[in-house]
Amino acid sequence: MKCRVCREPAVIDLRRHNANFCTDHFLRHCRQQVERVIKDFDMVRTDHRILVAVSGGKDSLALWDLLNELGYQVDGLYIGLGIDQYSDSSYRFVQEFVEQRSLHLIVVDLAETHGFGVSTASATTRRVPCSACGLSKRHVFDKAAVDGGYDAVVTGHNLDDEAAVLYGNVLRWQVGYLGRQRPVLEARAGFPRKVKPLIRLTERETAAYCVLRGIEYQVEECPMADGNRHLGFKEALNRLEEQSPGSKAEFYFGYLKRAIDRFEEPDDRDQLGPCSACGAPTDADVCAFCRLVLQATGTSISDRRPVALVSKPDIPASTGGPGSGHE
Amino acid sequence: MKCRVCREPAVIDLRRHNANFCTDHFLRHCRQQVERVIKDFDMVRTDHRILVAVSGGKDSLALWDLLNELGYQVDGLYIGLGIDQYSDSSYRFVQEFVEQRSLHLIVVDLAETHGFGVSTASATTRRVPCSACGLSKRHVFDKAAVDGGYDAVVTGHNLDDEAAVLYGNVLRWQVGYLGRQRPVLEARAGFPRKVKPLIRLTERETAAYCVLRGIEYQVEECPMADGNRHLGFKEALNRLEEQSPGSKAEFYFGYLKRAIDRFEEPDDRDQLGPCSACGAPTDADVCAFCRLVLQATGTSISDRRPVALVSKPDIPASTGGPGSGHE
Repeated sequence: MKCRVCREPAVIDLRRHNANFCTDHFLRHCRQQVERVIKDFDMVRTDHRILVAVSGGKDSLALWDLLNELGYQVDGLYIGLGIDQYSDSSYRFVQEFVEQRSLHLIVVDLAETHGFGVSTASATTRRVPCSACGLSKRHVFDKAAVDGGYDAVVTGHNLDDEAAVLYGNVLRWQVGYLGRQRPVLEARAGFPRKVKPLIRLTERETAAYCVLRGIEYQVEECPMADGNRHLGFKEALNRLEEQSPGSKAEFYFGYLKRAIDRFEEPDDRDQLGPCSACGAPTDADVCAFCRLVLQATGTSISDRRPVALVSKPDIPASTGGPGSGHE
Repeated sequence: MKCRVCREPAVIDLRRHNANFCTDHFLRHCRQQVERVIKDFDMVRTDHRILVAVSGGKDSLALWDLLNELGYQVDGLYIGLGIDQYSDSSYRFVQEFVEQRSLHLIVVDLAETHGFGVSTASATTRRVPCSACGLSKRHVFDKAAVDGGYDAVVTGHNLDDEAAVLYGNVLRWQVGYLGRQRPVLEARAGFPRKVKPLIRLTERETAAYCVLRGIEYQVEECPMADGNRHLGFKEALNRLEEQSPGSKAEFYFGYLKRAIDRFEEPDDRDQLGPCSACGAPTDADVCAFCRLVLQATGTSISDRRPVALVSKPDIPASTGGPGSGHE
């Protein structure tokens, strides 16, 4: 197996691209894929201030590294979700990455700022953990990006993620979600601009990228995502890809090219008012996140006040870092 | 396991309906599903002259039987496709069904009327067999229905078929096909009205219907469909259905309810002109079917003349029935 570019021994084969690559040309391939997406979808510029949402997993750390390599100015945002040991170890991977590169990391710990973690919230409210977690992450990311004046939030959603979400939405024809599944969501009052530069790379590729760049990351799947339908959708798409390499990309990019506009619906985000508890845009009196906080903590609306962003790039995990002892 | 209706011992469980049925109530269930589809989509009336396309398989024979039971006037059309032994044995099942019920059957043998069978056409033209077969069947059905003055052609496409076709079209976002995948296609100049009354029944249900009604049918899959991607799509949907009963119906009917209109495109069938060889509507000088005939038989356009419909309801399979000796 030889590298398509230099004919030296290859370290990875990418059937979808009908190509093998050595380490250097694979890393270049990854950078080129990200550059291409950024250009095709007009995502970000080098004079933008960018905030990357990092979890400690392969995708978000690869993304941060790739954007650095490509010359973008990127700060990180880590959210301590309070998923027991999993959050502790995830945070240590982020910390190590940041320290080695002297990057700026914002840390928001759900327990410290809002008095609950995902494990407790899910148990108390009987909500599916992934739903409570997603809601919390979106709320904290949006707020951090708007408060910090960032030009864009970038997230590490890869091709497998996006194809699986699309697959789930198509199987149930959830037309509201279908219209919004774009790689770029423009900023609106109270919402930052959100972009996904990894949509041309698969999970396997971001994992290989991290390994070849010496980036240590959280390998375990989140323990609360067990039985998540999303994982079943990924398996179905993987079987398809196995039989016919390229079909996952064809499914997702074909959708963006030929179908998504058919699901476009009027953007009602401008008609939202401020949440009476936290000020975030919402179509109700109290936003969904604040309702979750109230339920999870058993507090009442009068106890809720806007929370200042907690910025502590250098907090050591051993003395109050996210996930430590707040369950 | 007891029948949901009468509490007698049940013979079949339908997880999607969360129900078990005895023989009589299962047969009633099938009739009700067909009645409901006919009503919901305004498909056919009892004063219509209907032509059912029969292959000798479970779906088309079940459909013919169900429509008879519901009081519709239905003739059959069988096409001898020339797929070696498979066509011979398929025809015998149709013959037996027709003789037992004294029904009217039109038989068109591709070899006799057009000088080729699907096996030879596929080999000669290097076309995928399913493509040559589908093209031939559509052409002959359309012509037979229009020539015979029928109000509608009904076909035995079941829920598994329609969901699998939709799945394949969605995976590749074939938007042209997506807009046309309706249970009713209205008549246009040269094209008959086409409807699919079995879309609320699965393969398992039409098979059980035949067994319980004592209808003998061709059980074997077509030998030329081996490796057909369509079958892989059915498997993928079956896995999904296994995990979450009802998801196949949700996928297909959700599409009809919430998405198909988004893929509607202007119907260009009225702008078609007559094929210079056979007179069928086409957007070219010679229609796709006649091009297939010319290629498969090695004849030239001047040899082609409109072919009269061959009607021979009582032709014995042993002396020139479809598939016998024309390879």
